[in-house]
Amino acid sequence: MKNFEELSKEFIGRFDRTHFPSQPASLYDPASYFLTLGGKRIRPVLCLMGNELFDEISPQCWDAAIALELFHNFTLIHDDIMDKAPLRRGMPTLHARFGDSNALLAGDVTLVVAYDYLNRIQSNHIHRIIQLFNKTAKEVCEGQQLDMDYEKANEVSIGDYLRMIELKTSVLLASSLMIGAVLGGAGGGNQLHIGEFGRNLGLAFQIQDDYLDAFGDPAKVGKQIGGDIVANKKTFLFVRAMELASKEQKEEMDTLVRENPPDKVARMIAIFRSFGVDKEAKSLMAQCLSKADQHLEDIAVLSNRKEPLRQIAGYLMQREY
Amino acid sequence: MKNFEELSKEFIGRFDRTHFPSQPASLYDPASYFLTLGGKRIRPVLCLMGNELFDEISPQCWDAAIALELFHNFTLIHDDIMDKAPLRRGMPTLHARFGDSNALLAGDVTLVVAYDYLNRIQSNHIHRIIQLFNKTAKEVCEGQQLDMDYEKANEVSIGDYLRMIELKTSVLLASSLMIGAVLGGAGGGNQLHIGEFGRNLGLAFQIQDDYLDAFGDPAKVGKQIGGDIVANKKTFLFVRAMELASKEQKEEMDTLVRENPPDKVARMIAIFRSFGVDKEAKSLMAQCLSKADQHLEDIAVLSNRKEPLRQIAGYLMQREY
Repeated sequence: MKNFEELSKEFIGRFDRTHFPSQPASLYDPASYFLTLGGKRIRPVLCLMGNELFDEISPQCWDAAIALELFHNFTLIHDDIMDKAPLRRGMPTLHARFGDSNALLAGDVTLVVAYDYLNRIQSNHIHRIIQLFNKTAKEVCEGQQLDMDYEKANEVSIGDYLRMIELKTSVLLASSLMIGAVLGGAGGGNQLHIGEFGRNLGLAFQIQDDYLDAFGDPAKVGKQIGGDIVANKKTFLFVRAMELASKEQKEEMDTLVRENPPDKVARMIAIFRSFGVDKEAKSLMAQCLSKADQHLEDIAVLSNRKEPLRQIAGYLMQREY
Repeated sequence: MKNFEELSKEFIGRFDRTHFPSQPASLYDPASYFLTLGGKRIRPVLCLMGNELFDEISPQCWDAAIALELFHNFTLIHDDIMDKAPLRRGMPTLHARFGDSNALLAGDVTLVVAYDYLNRIQSNHIHRIIQLFNKTAKEVCEGQQLDMDYEKANEVSIGDYLRMIELKTSVLLASSLMIGAVLGGAGGGNQLHIGEFGRNLGLAFQIQDDYLDAFGDPAKVGKQIGGDIVANKKTFLFVRAMELASKEQKEEMDTLVRENPPDKVARMIAIFRSFGVDKEAKSLMAQCLSKADQHLEDIAVLSNRKEPLRQIAGYLMQREY
């Protein structure tokens, strides 16, 4: 059984090669550039862990893992265009460097190449894997759409918010684990439990992200506190505070959003604290983690095989940045 | 054996239904809207014809045909964004009506749904079909990239031009036929011939498109003559004329492109005629059609089974609009 660091290192070693034809370079160089921006490669590692939970890692699981990472990069390329984001991991985004049209096409071709890797999966599994992959792909698109819709919406309920982060973030973590599990021969019940483990872990992870933006230790977070507040993002903290606010308090928050005063971040954080949404976030995270843990325990394999997945839950959640 | 009109009508009947989930409507309504814009559905009909050339049309060939039409629509949605096109078939393009971001995502999800239909193909054929489909998908992206590159390029050779239209237009016609043929049980040699039939037909079709823009009968073309000239498109006529032009003649063409004088279309057409590129276009079309015909004849099935494909070549090429 390998842990996150070992699998991540091994995956990066295998992923660090050409995934595209060489010509036309004007199409494929941008696509290759984006993959060099790196990342923790969480999704392929989850796929490999889901596989190793049930069996030795199979060759075709590496192909599925690559497909998942390519898919994730496809979504990042297109999301960056839609969000007009100038930077990703400190480097120019694809559209910032090569223009919107090139980035759009490079994203498209990255998705097609993901299916090339899926097409290496053998006949006994390919239909189920593509079905899982496609269901997730549609859900991730739905999540991005809802995210854009909610940016413009006045009222977003916490239910709306949770559904959005589930679609945008959690389902891909869940299906990465499930795809690995299916290729490892997991039965229906075990597939369900590992999927729910991933879904709840993803929710906890995203809520933590929101929490740390406002309440993280700036020295450890490594970036300015309150980036989401400055950008008027509909985070857990903001959405929940809006739900709890009186008419006057809502107006105060709306004014902060609209007028961007210099003390906006500090004032918004004070509002969050006054409603106790920081504690609510922590509590909801704990609930999600507890559910994730329960589903992990319910998977019918020897307990020691689950150790890397227990570790990754700890690793993702104990971070303070 | 069914002809183009019969298959087109039957396909449209089956295609005219919901291909997307209902929620979120902000994502799926735009995607559905685009499919209502219609079109001749040439690619799925070619897929069905490729299938019927070898056997009765199989249920999974209908799925492949739908996948091809969805893929084609995905490329149109994204191409329209890149080309900033306001209209398609007289109606607002997706991005013109719903915004660039919505159109980008709706395009993405349309591609994913195309793979849902491919995933219905049975185990004995699915790998080969996805391989053909993906090869073509990458080539179509390459063609669109080259098209954009050539818009900015000063010198484009006729070889560059032909490669571009091959990738952007012909390969999808060819692979639609091939996918149908594979599902009909065609052997390797027959797959090759039907692919070459489609590739050459596609080239002839695109060159004819270029020709008719300048030399078609305005009454029959149904739109203003010279739209490509106004838009400074690198058509066969333009690219070939540039190749044949002296330094002074090139400068005259460059001036027309740059300055858009009121008599631009008439002057450019006169230049095309003076170089005889109208006749060259006709001659190249005839060559491509002759090659297509030869490959059709070389397919090892009873000659009368080829009748619908002979007809479609005639139908596509005898049009004067």
